[in-house]
Amino acid sequence: MPEAGSACRRGSILGVPPPDPLPEPLPEPLPEPLPEPPFLAACRGGRPEHPPVWFMRQAGRSLPEYRRVREGTGMLEACARPDLVVEITLQPVRRHGVDAAILFSDIVVPLKAVGVDLDIVAGVGPVVASPVRDRAAVDRLRVLEDDDVPFIGDAVAELVERLGPTPLIGFAGAPFTLASYLVEGGPSKDHARTKALMYGDEATWHALMGRLAEITAAFLRVQVAAGAGAVQLFDSWVGTLSAADYARYVQPHSRAVLDAVGSVPRIHFGVGTGDLLHLMAEGADVVGVDWRIPLDEAARRIGPGRAVQGNLDPALLLAPWEVIAERTRQVLAAGRAASGHVFNLGHGVLPQTDPDVLTRLVDVVHQVEPE
Amino acid sequence: MPEAGSACRRGSILGVPPPDPLPEPLPEPLPEPLPEPPFLAACRGGRPEHPPVWFMRQAGRSLPEYRRVREGTGMLEACARPDLVVEITLQPVRRHGVDAAILFSDIVVPLKAVGVDLDIVAGVGPVVASPVRDRAAVDRLRVLEDDDVPFIGDAVAELVERLGPTPLIGFAGAPFTLASYLVEGGPSKDHARTKALMYGDEATWHALMGRLAEITAAFLRVQVAAGAGAVQLFDSWVGTLSAADYARYVQPHSRAVLDAVGSVPRIHFGVGTGDLLHLMAEGADVVGVDWRIPLDEAARRIGPGRAVQGNLDPALLLAPWEVIAERTRQVLAAGRAASGHVFNLGHGVLPQTDPDVLTRLVDVVHQVEPE
Repeated sequence: MPEAGSACRRGSILGVPPPDPLPEPLPEPLPEPLPEPPFLAACRGGRPEHPPVWFMRQAGRSLPEYRRVREGTGMLEACARPDLVVEITLQPVRRHGVDAAILFSDIVVPLKAVGVDLDIVAGVGPVVASPVRDRAAVDRLRVLEDDDVPFIGDAVAELVERLGPTPLIGFAGAPFTLASYLVEGGPSKDHARTKALMYGDEATWHALMGRLAEITAAFLRVQVAAGAGAVQLFDSWVGTLSAADYARYVQPHSRAVLDAVGSVPRIHFGVGTGDLLHLMAEGADVVGVDWRIPLDEAARRIGPGRAVQGNLDPALLLAPWEVIAERTRQVLAAGRAASGHVFNLGHGVLPQTDPDVLTRLVDVVHQVEPE
Repeated sequence: MPEAGSACRRGSILGVPPPDPLPEPLPEPLPEPLPEPPFLAACRGGRPEHPPVWFMRQAGRSLPEYRRVREGTGMLEACARPDLVVEITLQPVRRHGVDAAILFSDIVVPLKAVGVDLDIVAGVGPVVASPVRDRAAVDRLRVLEDDDVPFIGDAVAELVERLGPTPLIGFAGAPFTLASYLVEGGPSKDHARTKALMYGDEATWHALMGRLAEITAAFLRVQVAAGAGAVQLFDSWVGTLSAADYARYVQPHSRAVLDAVGSVPRIHFGVGTGDLLHLMAEGADVVGVDWRIPLDEAARRIGPGRAVQGNLDPALLLAPWEVIAERTRQVLAAGRAASGHVFNLGHGVLPQTDPDVLTRLVDVVHQVEPE
């Protein structure tokens, strides 16, 4: 009596006990598992039915609905309001049909949450009131507790429910990039003070990076615990270092963050990191690549067993459509050399990008036949 | 009578005619030629008695005597005054004892000289009144004639005389970097408009780059004709391109500039160019390398027969002396893998650098024994 058996199982799931003991149900085929979302399949090295695609900064200024909803609300305020975070995170999924959402947040949110006095100034970027340049300042940086960021868990939980099968990517800035903002006091072209501390006082540097790794790991764990299906660690500025310096001053700390969130796929991304890819791959499942080297060359540098993400130049989206389409084909072809490919840009969507071009790009990527 | 022969030669050198005709002198070794300056020897792949050293932006804001002499004079005005150009160019030679001077100028000087309406705004950089974004604007860019820059020839000629055996390096910005300023209208983080033109209208792009190559070549030829002993072509922003795009959109034009000044050693430098070095080497005698990859690896990528220049991270000069000394030894050791090594920083001197550190660095490099 398979119907009765089904009813029984459905009943027990709903918490209603069956009225009578029933005979053992006949063996039957298990129901087909839901197919794994293409994004997660590619992160794990698979070849899903179509290449998955999302865009760094897909939730942002290229969308008129984003500019509308952000009107009159500062960046940090927006990041702390679950209703806005949910709405902004969903916007590009609704509009473009991308294969993953990424939590709308900012890399300085966890710093703000542990009490660092900072603000995001329009046209400038993060500005830190009291830069961190000595051991005493490092020692004042406290760890992040879950209840420092209740709005993150709330937003992620609601997003996961509303997104259904579309995975949500959790998000954090990596220790080096956070350190750069803290030490410089704001954005910097040359990261001179950061490097002066790094080269000049290695013990203080490692204390700072260690604490930032703890904060970052805690921030990502909150997101994973609330249901994020993957995480991306952004190390925007780390391309300013040589491989030897990356290995010595940065890698142990970024690695600790990645190791702390190993239950979901981990994407590790930086800009201008052609000579760091093999190091950034350690502890990561997916290595994000900017547009400077082709993905087949990136896959060679990274080695087997890890997926790549990227890598169309965001500036290309300002060119005519035929150029975009040709370059997209090239990126997809080069990506086949890797163990898994998540299509993306090589850096964030530029604010002046026409959102219709992004939608069209998603369609083109989705029409690619599996090999 | 070797003594009489010697006296005769000495006499004729002093312009005093010998009293009587003398018998044909015995064959003897020619007098030793003056040793080639270490900088030129290294550029040509030699191993001079000590490694030569100079610093990008050695003539600049790190020097109090520079700040004093520039007080109240705008950058472009200073570049057009031979007295100031001579004084500023000589300052670091006097103070640090570097092995080469580099002409004090700015990459936009030749653009200004052909009538582009631009200014250098303190704290911003070059600002172009009417950005160049279409074919008509490109067609309005005229070639550079020698008499557009009389102040350059005058300054170079006086410098060569005053510098004596110390070579003067001529200086120009490369076509891509100039194009970026012209198209963007000023400095840019993402070079988005530049790339939009490059990817979107290739014919106009090549017309622009071709004209900029002509202007740049003419600007360098003026310097070489007046006595510059070497030239450096700066392509500050070209590290934003992949190797394939560099080869297609930039290399033919930079190569044309280098080919036009082949009578002196040509240094070709850019930032973040680890994956472009093999292409930038073509037509160059010396390839400048930033701090991101070690010089032995750079030499491997460049191939044999070309010297390297670099590559201490300028930010390192803010660290304690022991760290600087250790890294300097590493740079010198790695440089031995190349066919010639000119010691330099991996980018320009940072304004906050202590000039005494630069002087000390020159001394340390000069004390290195040849292998």
